[in-house]
Amino acid sequence: VCQLSRWHPGVPSPSAREAASMYGTAVAVFLVIVVAALQGSAPAESPFPFHIPLDPEGTLELSWNVSYAQETVYFQLLVRELKAGVLFGMSDRGELENADLVVLWTDRDGAYFGDAWSDQKGQVHLDSQQDYQLLRAQRTPEGLCLLFKRPFGTCDPNDYLIEDGTVHLVYGLLEEPLQSLEAINTSGLRTGLQRVQLLKPSIPQPALPADTRTMEIRAPDVLIPGQQTTYWCYITELPDGFPQHHIVMYEPIVTEGNEALVHHMEVFQCAAEFESVPHFSGPCDSKMKPQRLNYCRHVLAAWALGAKAFYYPEEAGLAFGGPGSSRFLRLEVHYHNPLVIKGRRDSSGIRLYYTATLRRFDAGIMELGLVYTPVMAVPPQETAFVLTGYCTDKCTQLALPPSGIHIFASQLHTHLTGRKVVTVLARDGRETEVVNRDSHYSPHFQVLRASVCSALQGDVLITSCTYNTEDRRLATVGGFGILEEMCVNYVHYYPQTQLELCKSAVDPGFLQKYFHLVNRFNSEEVCTCPQASVPEQFASVPWNSFNREVLKALYGFAPISMHCNKSSAVRFQGEWDRQPLPEIVSRLEEPTPHCPASRAQSPTGPTVLSIGEGKG
Amino acid sequence: VCQLSRWHPGVPSPSAREAASMYGTAVAVFLVIVVAALQGSAPAESPFPFHIPLDPEGTLELSWNVSYAQETVYFQLLVRELKAGVLFGMSDRGELENADLVVLWTDRDGAYFGDAWSDQKGQVHLDSQQDYQLLRAQRTPEGLCLLFKRPFGTCDPNDYLIEDGTVHLVYGLLEEPLQSLEAINTSGLRTGLQRVQLLKPSIPQPALPADTRTMEIRAPDVLIPGQQTTYWCYITELPDGFPQHHIVMYEPIVTEGNEALVHHMEVFQCAAEFESVPHFSGPCDSKMKPQRLNYCRHVLAAWALGAKAFYYPEEAGLAFGGPGSSRFLRLEVHYHNPLVIKGRRDSSGIRLYYTATLRRFDAGIMELGLVYTPVMAVPPQETAFVLTGYCTDKCTQLALPPSGIHIFASQLHTHLTGRKVVTVLARDGRETEVVNRDSHYSPHFQVLRASVCSALQGDVLITSCTYNTEDRRLATVGGFGILEEMCVNYVHYYPQTQLELCKSAVDPGFLQKYFHLVNRFNSEEVCTCPQASVPEQFASVPWNSFNREVLKALYGFAPISMHCNKSSAVRFQGEWDRQPLPEIVSRLEEPTPHCPASRAQSPTGPTVLSIGEGKG
Repeated sequence: VCQLSRWHPGVPSPSAREAASMYGTAVAVFLVIVVAALQGSAPAESPFPFHIPLDPEGTLELSWNVSYAQETVYFQLLVRELKAGVLFGMSDRGELENADLVVLWTDRDGAYFGDAWSDQKGQVHLDSQQDYQLLRAQRTPEGLCLLFKRPFGTCDPNDYLIEDGTVHLVYGLLEEPLQSLEAINTSGLRTGLQRVQLLKPSIPQPALPADTRTMEIRAPDVLIPGQQTTYWCYITELPDGFPQHHIVMYEPIVTEGNEALVHHMEVFQCAAEFESVPHFSGPCDSKMKPQRLNYCRHVLAAWALGAKAFYYPEEAGLAFGGPGSSRFLRLEVHYHNPLVIKGRRDSSGIRLYYTATLRRFDAGIMELGLVYTPVMAVPPQETAFVLTGYCTDKCTQLALPPSGIHIFASQLHTHLTGRKVVTVLARDGRETEVVNRDSHYSPHFQVLRASVCSALQGDVLITSCTYNTEDRRLATVGGFGILEEMCVNYVHYYPQTQLELCKSAVDPGFLQKYFHLVNRFNSEEVCTCPQASVPEQFASVPWNSFNREVLKALYGFAPISMHCNKSSAVRFQGEWDRQPLPEIVSRLEEPTPHCPASRAQSPTGPTVLSIGEGKG
Repeated sequence: VCQLSRWHPGVPSPSAREAASMYGTAVAVFLVIVVAALQGSAPAESPFPFHIPLDPEGTLELSWNVSYAQETVYFQLLVRELKAGVLFGMSDRGELENADLVVLWTDRDGAYFGDAWSDQKGQVHLDSQQDYQLLRAQRTPEGLCLLFKRPFGTCDPNDYLIEDGTVHLVYGLLEEPLQSLEAINTSGLRTGLQRVQLLKPSIPQPALPADTRTMEIRAPDVLIPGQQTTYWCYITELPDGFPQHHIVMYEPIVTEGNEALVHHMEVFQCAAEFESVPHFSGPCDSKMKPQRLNYCRHVLAAWALGAKAFYYPEEAGLAFGGPGSSRFLRLEVHYHNPLVIKGRRDSSGIRLYYTATLRRFDAGIMELGLVYTPVMAVPPQETAFVLTGYCTDKCTQLALPPSGIHIFASQLHTHLTGRKVVTVLARDGRETEVVNRDSHYSPHFQVLRASVCSALQGDVLITSCTYNTEDRRLATVGGFGILEEMCVNYVHYYPQTQLELCKSAVDPGFLQKYFHLVNRFNSEEVCTCPQASVPEQFASVPWNSFNREVLKALYGFAPISMHCNKSSAVRFQGEWDRQPLPEIVSRLEEPTPHCPASRAQSPTGPTVLSIGEGKG
């Protein structure tokens, strides 16, 4: 992409010239701008370790790198067939309205690059503060290559705050020259979105053992269906008598040309109780799919678009193979095919790196959050209703080893109405650390993310999910169904313990008090008879402001029923019903942008482009 | 102050030189800064129409002017006895922590002027964005005179947003030179606060009628008590047979030298039912005060520190004198004497301007907000609990004239725990206008503020008060007592109608449902027996999160009881109990700062001072 090897960080190109342009204001202040040389932490291996196609046709290709020292993202955007310009940016959930944009456009006389934003109607405006800074624009044989940077936070209220977690990248293509930027309305353009994890924790990659071997788990020669969304299921198996090994790394294998179609992939191990699982290769929702595939849910590896290889910490590996575990593996590939391309073949999958020299610790996976029960419910027509699940001090005291556990990765999970998920750790009543936070969570982008965090005996782990039920007519209750909800964080950690589930739900008796109260206050018919199920009771609540607020207050006050379990059915010994809610005396603050000290030096108008020919 | 006449706006003084100073960052950007000439709306009469002493000794004197076109305040600060520097700024409630500051300091070698802020420990930091801009520093015979400006909003999260309503100005005096700004902690300085209305609506002053006469209402030769707070009461009377007149303007008369002591003054008319009211001149809380003075509550004029003359609109005047009204007037003067100065004499008061040629409309005063009843209560330990009172469409439909009323002034009122007050007008379910908003309201600074707003038949007026009860152990209920609470907006309007009170409170039956619910949920003893009074019931509520949240939900949901009254005892005809809460489908947004487009041009470090000698 963009002839990467020719770009040398730290050496400003002589062809990079920018002219200051006074825009909109006429004040007696003169700015002379010299292009800032790239400085600070120079990229380690490759200047742009991450790349992703933005549109399904592959017209736009994005590479990026992150400087944590400068709190800045460096972007390289390759525009293969430039017509009159391009929009690129970020927005809350991938919409082109209220987006933070960078725009390259031409008015026939010249080409311009500017920091812009779109309002709630999609109308584009030039930003009064230019926080995207162009570093180079160059024609290359592949297309126009733009190099620019952007601080994580800008303190501009029209700007997006780049955080850990999901970022919804958006783009648009300009077909015709424009008199001005203000002539653009995103609703008239060819646009799209791509979800990505822009910031990756910079955790050093441990060296692989000398005896590392690899195994490719891929579904050979899949004919990608001509429909927008396909989850492909493929069953394969480990060799007979394959002894226990440790997975120490895995990476994606994406068939060339299908980079924009392969959205995410996961490898699961089947349940050990089945002697065998029938072979299968087909859509996961196919009627032909054998029932037993539903018991292949133990995660071995998870990858999503934009992610690179995942390394286990030096001291730990994920056990697979050997007696007591299933030989059968299920690969799931999510094909995202918005253009409904037909006839494309694919053999993508995941390459496991494993060793027979077992590492010191087995890695384990633990489920935090809410029990799958209808007592936890979200009223309809809510834009941001929060449900919270607890892993209490009593459970961690009992189930964690005295030296605690190291959490090194985390995967958040909800069903369709989930919009944000966060797990925080609290010690002695004080929130001390974020285990994983995604403020732009999408159920369509469930990535395993690296995390660094230790949990000790007596710590509390609090997982909160924010739901949007604006399109629902009835309450959404907790449960397994796709129209029911979940709030889960799969935490990857070592050393492995017996604790598989540490989740909570409101005490059912207090929920019945709530239904009584609703009855009394509203003099309406709420079915509180013992025959009615909880979903039926929720379905008959008249959702006025009082009943909504009191349900929130109930969830924030009533005692909880804990699942502190060895496996989904076996509890640790102890009293787990009607437990008090953990008391939190000090909360972590919401992330707020660091205002870059140098922002007063950014230009106030767009940059006039001088595009050099790439001469290597 | 500062030899005002010598200062010519629009003509930059040749002695005003500023050098750009790169501070803290080293980036390849060069700024050349030329002092911006004062431009835009030149002040009408006097360049600085408003002035106020900041400290009780009169060391610091502030004058200011406002440009609404530029959304900028121009400050002129006179420092009479400069030692090593001065801090000046604004904060939420007058504290020196979390304050937005401008600092003049010296390190012996030079003098510096910089935009700064103090953190929650009072530690001062230089602001990365310099939004206070020094325009001139000059020595004058009276002292050092600093001229600087500041936009209303800066978009800097460390900066204060200058809004309508109360502004808490803060100051501090530096005694010794400092190596750097960061060496300042406000806790070690002589500091103080002054409340002021910084932004005044620019409403044209109507000409006074030719036959205007004046009457001075002042308590002659008061010996100001040597204590921090005194409310002085003085009874005077109109001449016998004084016919009806219209007050068309009034202004403060503050005894020279006492400018820092006279905090606010009000003139009230006594109730008409008393033939006479005994003369009195003494503290309002004196045991010697005649009981009848409590019936002198009809406001004729209200002034507070920093306010200028108050003009009635051309078409209206406030009726006083004539048959059917009391001849007796009560003057109340609030002396604020933090240095406990003794032996100071004062004859301050208010000068009424009145005409015998009655204007077209009588002005009236209407009370909006909450009924004085204990059913509206605030739980203890709340930092920002909101109570809301309604003037419903049903009442305005019945009581307002078909052409509506013009509101031209408004005075907000709460007791000690009030922190914010706002009244908004809603038409057809949509909030359309703010009648008066004070986000930094103080019960110690109750000013009559000009306002421009029309209310029609069918409009709804919503008054919300925010309370802080962190220092209370029990619930604070509504009522007349100083430890009880009120939420009132006295709205001044014309033409006068019979509607004197348009206020609400929650339906008492629904409150009893709340006490039942509290009983049921908490299995604790809440006194709900019919003998218990509402304050007793509130006193026995265990204030856990559930009971707090449900009370909030109740107030936001339960029907209301309306007082739509001709006088405090006489209701308009109709059904006013168990009325539905007005439904509001669209709310006005909270005020947010306009980020000045030119902020990228502000310097990034402090300004080195070059102080010219005033040569006229």
